[in-house]
Amino acid sequence: MIFNNGHLFAGIPAALPAEQFDTLLHTSACRLERIISIGHATPTEEWYDQDEDEWVALLQGQAGLRFADEEAARLLTPGDYVWIPAHRRHRVEWTSQNPPTVWLALHLRDGDAQ
Amino acid sequence: MIFNNGHLFAGIPAALPAEQFDTLLHTSACRLERIISIGHATPTEEWYDQDEDEWVALLQGQAGLRFADEEAARLLTPGDYVWIPAHRRHRVEWTSQNPPTVWLALHLRDGDAQ
Repeated sequence: MIFNNGHLFAGIPAALPAEQFDTLLHTSACRLERIISIGHATPTEEWYDQDEDEWVALLQGQAGLRFADEEAARLLTPGDYVWIPAHRRHRVEWTSQNPPTVWLALHLRDGDAQ
Repeated sequence: MIFNNGHLFAGIPAALPAEQFDTLLHTSACRLERIISIGHATPTEEWYDQDEDEWVALLQGQAGLRFADEEAARLLTPGDYVWIPAHRRHRVEWTSQNPPTVWLALHLRDGDAQ
């Protein structure tokens, strides 16, 4: 199979009605995606509760990432990466609009990170 | 298992005798690593010929990536990513020293990228 080459900061719109998810790579064990958030946040009182482990890096912009088991949101700036084990509840409290926030997320299906 | 959180641009030395490889994540199916190159290049006339598929992004600095089946090296700048199928021979012709070159590489063991 052939994957496209590309640029992590290409094709970023000035505004988005909802977050944009671009799959960069997809195997039976993992999925790598770019996520663009432009001021988006997880809806109030909602939490992500994922079946898969996730490694996520913030590449551009800023965001507030809150874990349900922590008191306050973590400020993420470009270069920060976070390990989110399956079922560790979390939410994105806010993301920057200018510049747009760009995430790189690796979702792991097999759950055997070691 | 618990993985550390961290920063992709933290702990980058001013000079390195050899390229530095930091494993960020390791599962049975994939391995995510940060690579720091400070002027390093693949030795003359040598080629990488890898058993695993690799997705690699350049995050900082610049590099010249040459495939054996292409005439010239590709110039990579921050944000560029490249899909390197197993056994597609390639070499790094040069990397920037200032700033140091930072790569994010995802190595896939299962070879079933789809």
